[in-house]
Amino acid sequence: MIVSGLVTSLIGMTHNTEKPPLSLLGLGAMGGALARAWLAAGHPLTVWNRTPGRAEALEGARVATTAAEAVAASDLVVVCLLDHASVDDALAGVDLSGKDLVDLTTGTPEEARARARWARERGARFLDGGVMAVPPMIGVPGSGAYVFYSGSPAVFEAHAGTLATPAATVYTGEDPGLAALHDVALLSAMTGMFAGVTHAFALVREEIPPKAFADLVAGWLQAMVPYAYGVAEHLESGDYTKDVTSNLAMMVRGNATLLRTAEEQKVSPELLMPFMTLMARRLADGHTDEGTTGVIDLLRVP
Amino acid sequence: MIVSGLVTSLIGMTHNTEKPPLSLLGLGAMGGALARAWLAAGHPLTVWNRTPGRAEALEGARVATTAAEAVAASDLVVVCLLDHASVDDALAGVDLSGKDLVDLTTGTPEEARARARWARERGARFLDGGVMAVPPMIGVPGSGAYVFYSGSPAVFEAHAGTLATPAATVYTGEDPGLAALHDVALLSAMTGMFAGVTHAFALVREEIPPKAFADLVAGWLQAMVPYAYGVAEHLESGDYTKDVTSNLAMMVRGNATLLRTAEEQKVSPELLMPFMTLMARRLADGHTDEGTTGVIDLLRVP
Repeated sequence: MIVSGLVTSLIGMTHNTEKPPLSLLGLGAMGGALARAWLAAGHPLTVWNRTPGRAEALEGARVATTAAEAVAASDLVVVCLLDHASVDDALAGVDLSGKDLVDLTTGTPEEARARARWARERGARFLDGGVMAVPPMIGVPGSGAYVFYSGSPAVFEAHAGTLATPAATVYTGEDPGLAALHDVALLSAMTGMFAGVTHAFALVREEIPPKAFADLVAGWLQAMVPYAYGVAEHLESGDYTKDVTSNLAMMVRGNATLLRTAEEQKVSPELLMPFMTLMARRLADGHTDEGTTGVIDLLRVP
Repeated sequence: MIVSGLVTSLIGMTHNTEKPPLSLLGLGAMGGALARAWLAAGHPLTVWNRTPGRAEALEGARVATTAAEAVAASDLVVVCLLDHASVDDALAGVDLSGKDLVDLTTGTPEEARARARWARERGARFLDGGVMAVPPMIGVPGSGAYVFYSGSPAVFEAHAGTLATPAATVYTGEDPGLAALHDVALLSAMTGMFAGVTHAFALVREEIPPKAFADLVAGWLQAMVPYAYGVAEHLESGDYTKDVTSNLAMMVRGNATLLRTAEEQKVSPELLMPFMTLMARRLADGHTDEGTTGVIDLLRVP
């Protein structure tokens, strides 16, 4: 066991000097964090950024003066730019044939699918990624950072170790839009959660010490877990009343108390109103014994 | 140690037959669950409900035919009715002098304060409660159910064991409005969270299996913990830029991607718009380096 451990360790050391090279376009907050993680792990890294200063600040990186030069330097090319249009700008006219292009630029599912077609036309294999982390979490084991990937399974497998260096990886499927869909869906859920917590802090700010309230919010988050599984069960079965412990009629009555309290505390109800309005509409449609799952149907744009 | 254990156990058995009596007004879903928990623990319980059938179904309870009779039966009187007006109706003209009144009816902070004044005028001591649970969690050890209490500390202490029987207890202060404020604030946060998760399920429903997405949501909830503590720190320090890892400028840019994705997926953005609108307004006011805490200031109604 000890010998085996030593051998593994020696192999590991040898590998450290032979980590696969890659090129990275974009050294914003996220790109910079990714670059440092790959450099720290010993990957030969070629970087390019529109504004040159940032690249020079990265010790150990080879700095390319053009995007074309960065792309030419490695078989694996990762881009992490501002948006879809920035990728178009950076890679306009650049030879991508035979390259594996991984796009960590934030975008929509359709933008990822369009990029996949664009890459195929230029002879590149394509993988899209959605980073579920803020930059300080990148390259930190146990930070919880992970990246959704979708598109070419061959690219995901060929570069598995390199991709897993800055953050854990989750492959979501061959449809190149899936990573962005997962990414945006969780960010959207988070936005709603932020809105709820923001309203709650506004209610209590004069009367409950903020950190004590944060403790309560942290404990209360567990209440969301059965909610999410309940909604999932409703969507899978089509029966939106299954195992509902607090039905729509009760919830709508409770909403009135929430609104009266907001008025007493001089807090605008605008963050809560749209959901309450849809709950009331669903109840008016006769779905008394449902929970809130039916609101999902009301969100569908014809 | 063993002898001590036996003695405690014997005392416990003796106590079981001598649990303090109480009266409970209101046998809706929550009142019924509370009644069953107290009866199961051996408390002599007198119950009253406007609709008589529900009381008779509770084996072991003494059924009062009027609210006044129920109140007269015990020093501790717990009410769990539909709303504030129902409590007025039920207790109109009832002699409350010398009673300890505990109100678990859902209401606003001002309603609780008004009830405390009302009780004092009638010679009763008052404690308000906000139940953080759905009925199936009541009386189930480890369910996570708890009740916020506020008002008379003497009432809370005199009946500590009885109150802790159906659910854990959290005393929040002498201001009778505090329990309702804690209750409503957490329910408001939950409403926002439900809205976010609802939008997210609407985005992915055709393309990601609901239970797989629920798994992701459950894991993602942990991202809310540092958010809540970050907001608390901002409110306590007054510096809304402290330790911000994703600033308002970046978040507003990200919101555009969330909205474009909603459009692609044919999902109405109405649940996310109010928060995004306030974020954009705060950014337009020049608070580029803040997170979202400044939105709390924008919610204040003059």
